[in-house]
Amino acid sequence: MKERKRIVVIGGSAAGPKAAARAKRLDPDAEVTIIQKAPEMSMASCGYPYYVGGVFDNRNALLSTPYGEVRDPHFFVHTKGVKARTLTEAVSIDREGRTVRCRDLHSGDLDDVPYDKLILATGARPRKPPIPGVDLVGVTTLQSMKDADFLRRIRDDKSITKAVVIGGGLIGIETCEALQLSGIDITVIEMLPQILMFLDWELAKILENHVRSNAANVITDVKVAGFVGENGQLTGVKLENGTELPCHLAVLAIGVIPNTDLARDAGLDIGQTGGIAVDDFMQTSDPHIYAVGDCVELVHRITGKKTRAPFGDLANLEGRVAGENAVLGNQVTFPGTLHTGICKVFDFSAGSTGLSELRARQEGYENVVTVINASLDKPEFMGAKLLISKMVVDGNTGKILGVQCVGPGDVAKQIATAAMALHGKLTVADVVNADLPYAPPFSLPIDHFIATAHLMENKLKGRLKSMSPIELKKNLDAGKDPFILDVRTPDEFEAVRIGIGETLIPIGELRHRFEDLPEDRDREIVCFCKISLRGYEAALVLESAGWRNVKVLEGGVMAWPFGREK
Amino acid sequence: MKERKRIVVIGGSAAGPKAAARAKRLDPDAEVTIIQKAPEMSMASCGYPYYVGGVFDNRNALLSTPYGEVRDPHFFVHTKGVKARTLTEAVSIDREGRTVRCRDLHSGDLDDVPYDKLILATGARPRKPPIPGVDLVGVTTLQSMKDADFLRRIRDDKSITKAVVIGGGLIGIETCEALQLSGIDITVIEMLPQILMFLDWELAKILENHVRSNAANVITDVKVAGFVGENGQLTGVKLENGTELPCHLAVLAIGVIPNTDLARDAGLDIGQTGGIAVDDFMQTSDPHIYAVGDCVELVHRITGKKTRAPFGDLANLEGRVAGENAVLGNQVTFPGTLHTGICKVFDFSAGSTGLSELRARQEGYENVVTVINASLDKPEFMGAKLLISKMVVDGNTGKILGVQCVGPGDVAKQIATAAMALHGKLTVADVVNADLPYAPPFSLPIDHFIATAHLMENKLKGRLKSMSPIELKKNLDAGKDPFILDVRTPDEFEAVRIGIGETLIPIGELRHRFEDLPEDRDREIVCFCKISLRGYEAALVLESAGWRNVKVLEGGVMAWPFGREK
Repeated sequence: MKERKRIVVIGGSAAGPKAAARAKRLDPDAEVTIIQKAPEMSMASCGYPYYVGGVFDNRNALLSTPYGEVRDPHFFVHTKGVKARTLTEAVSIDREGRTVRCRDLHSGDLDDVPYDKLILATGARPRKPPIPGVDLVGVTTLQSMKDADFLRRIRDDKSITKAVVIGGGLIGIETCEALQLSGIDITVIEMLPQILMFLDWELAKILENHVRSNAANVITDVKVAGFVGENGQLTGVKLENGTELPCHLAVLAIGVIPNTDLARDAGLDIGQTGGIAVDDFMQTSDPHIYAVGDCVELVHRITGKKTRAPFGDLANLEGRVAGENAVLGNQVTFPGTLHTGICKVFDFSAGSTGLSELRARQEGYENVVTVINASLDKPEFMGAKLLISKMVVDGNTGKILGVQCVGPGDVAKQIATAAMALHGKLTVADVVNADLPYAPPFSLPIDHFIATAHLMENKLKGRLKSMSPIELKKNLDAGKDPFILDVRTPDEFEAVRIGIGETLIPIGELRHRFEDLPEDRDREIVCFCKISLRGYEAALVLESAGWRNVKVLEGGVMAWPFGREK
Repeated sequence: MKERKRIVVIGGSAAGPKAAARAKRLDPDAEVTIIQKAPEMSMASCGYPYYVGGVFDNRNALLSTPYGEVRDPHFFVHTKGVKARTLTEAVSIDREGRTVRCRDLHSGDLDDVPYDKLILATGARPRKPPIPGVDLVGVTTLQSMKDADFLRRIRDDKSITKAVVIGGGLIGIETCEALQLSGIDITVIEMLPQILMFLDWELAKILENHVRSNAANVITDVKVAGFVGENGQLTGVKLENGTELPCHLAVLAIGVIPNTDLARDAGLDIGQTGGIAVDDFMQTSDPHIYAVGDCVELVHRITGKKTRAPFGDLANLEGRVAGENAVLGNQVTFPGTLHTGICKVFDFSAGSTGLSELRARQEGYENVVTVINASLDKPEFMGAKLLISKMVVDGNTGKILGVQCVGPGDVAKQIATAAMALHGKLTVADVVNADLPYAPPFSLPIDHFIATAHLMENKLKGRLKSMSPIELKKNLDAGKDPFILDVRTPDEFEAVRIGIGETLIPIGELRHRFEDLPEDRDREIVCFCKISLRGYEAALVLESAGWRNVKVLEGGVMAWPFGREK
């Protein structure tokens, strides 16, 4: 008689249940057990901000299948054939004896659960800075169902009017929106010079400005010194620059720390990045133990280096791989991450896949070429919205290294398209003639993604003489004196302008107003419009009229990150 | 002194102006001339249905840049440096003398325009069947600005209550929606067994049912015998089956014929598919002549065979390639088409990239494997919408050959993602662990595209025993007698059901109702639910309980194309 394989999974959030279900599916005879510390299982934790913000009210939706069945231990036994023990803590692993010591959090009883293969899905915990007052009531995180319940109650009670979110990453920004939608006055504090580090600075600033325009404050480049309170209750956040922000709620969102204690205590290898070390099979240094989800480190698919990527989608995919390998032997591999991410914030979305310019330079690429493209996502007459993208390319090979996109337009499609191009290791030349789905309700005839690639191709071939906003700002700050030409209409100029000494000559008048342009045909002229389509046309006009040093400001007024005049 | 290169472009709609602008940009000294027969230029012709349907009212938006400047000859001269002659017909090409004979349609005057390189962008014309009454007033097409004006006037006048659209392709379906939105009673007639041939039959039927539920009638599998009228005015459409549909408007949308007369008369090679033959450089059999847009034939990127692909997005990309090659010598190539397409129809979208199952079989693939996946596009709590996809794979290599998708959900993202996977020549194994952008406002943790790939992987590895709706229907029609099990709730069953003798046992009760299932453990059982997620779980339960021939109906009730009971 065949022996039943015993698969034990530690962790019941995302990666764990997926691994368990996959293992059971591929080996129906296996005895699969999930050990879960929390009372809930399979929480849709990425949905917490939307529950907190009142996008939906049914708490059970976070814990249920699409058809409304709660994913509790009963569900796992009955529909998945998987045993699940909630409120049970795995306290240690005996690798020799292949058992996991478990503690029942109700009774305190200990028992040893034997395994043939063990899958660690211990997740990560929110980072908490060791600063004064961090344990005051009112200082929280948004990582557990309990956190979500706490914040949702605050929303429903309308008991708090001012809150501070510490950390401007994905979760910080989503939390900011959630609380702002709850009618709370929000300030986001970020110690780095920008929010959303998956974006380069100039795109992050565009988003930051959007957050501000939705009545949430953002302060970058400043550290939190401590929390102040009265009678154990938070009353304010103190910044290192001396400012104190009064508030009764502070949400810490400064990243997560992988839960590796169990693995470390068992003597498993921990990687340089702090996550449990695994190979392509998601196998740890012990061949009987796999690890998946937020507790591991992964390979970055572009750099080949180890990295951490605590994302819910990857957790599921990793779980699926480990579940198969645990029961069938090492069959399938997980190829790693592109650090693809996206978030919605008010009317904008922001997404990124692959390397940012900053990251590409840090990784040692010597010839990093970038371009910013601002355009509509579909024809104006179909209710178009703006997209601002930045493409990052290895200038030596033409290989696309990363794409970022922000704006009110269809960012998700842009990033999904770009991510799949990265999966295919495509070059700019490979995508300039891509056959993407076109009809007016969905895109421009030349999709924004392809248009970005066209700009990049022109730049790589030396045909587009353009300048990023950062480059122009640097030149101005260094005392250079280009002639700056805004070719929009007077009405547009009146409504909003960059305000760096630009001259307004509408594109239609340009050919008749050459006398208003520099006499010196070698003086640098930088042209722009709203998104630099007319700016580009202006550059062509000026070049054919004999000016020899004409550049286009990438992304125009819309992508200018340094603040604008109104 | 360098001689100015003379570039002549025949055709001023999409491909032509793009080629002209590109040529002028890359060789500012070139003398570029567009010869255009129509009074307008650069018409956003894909936008006609939305103008006709009243999605927007500003006719000029179809003829203008995003910032509102009309793309007329004045615009081309002033912003592009390109000369444009509208209402001018190119009547013949003298290849020896390298001139194009042109006729001014105002004066009738002829003149010869010399060229160094000629670019043909002569487009295509709507196919008109040689049947009685085709010239009656009220029989029209939707291809020119004039057609759009005619149909828009009908909308504004409210002069017509009944219309027939002949042809259920992309343009036919878009026209159907436009006229229905105009308050006109619509019937679509399609001679093939289905509308939208870029979809396989079963997905097309889902869309067809959606069109019907929006009060437009669809009749497939029937030919038009003729048009009947009184005093030269259309009064009805006669079908070959004898039916006569009274109407005062009939729109022909049965495809287009490439305009190749000029090329043919000049002795250029015409391809097997009827388009002008061009190589990868978009060069015709005469090295001084390029051809682009709807008048050419292209390479299909998957089959490598010649095909036609009269799409606006490709026309622009081809124009860009030919424009560059015409002035710089053959530098860049156009790699062909994936036949990627998309259309919106009422609340659904339908898209496709690569090969359908039918097409893959016609192309001679011996081991075509397909799977249908119905799922939500994001979590239920975020206001999810349904997507139904079909993936077509070469079972011998695992290479993805095509993906189709229909439904109210975000079809465009699905098809863009799939198209980019096809560009990368990716296999199913390459995409099962794709790192796509995930956050609840945009997708499920496992994106619909990846989930479809997971089903396919399981099917290729023999782990998913599933059945397509067509397969099940065939079996039933052949007298087979599987036990058919619907595992939804009684409420769902009451609301809508397939109605093929299925037994209802809700998934939650299944384990307690084994006695209601076949005693014969080898009898075929086909499980399903709304989308077959629960159906799949039911299959696992039954298998582990000892039934040996359990299958899942792909896509469940939502993807059942044969009509449902309510």
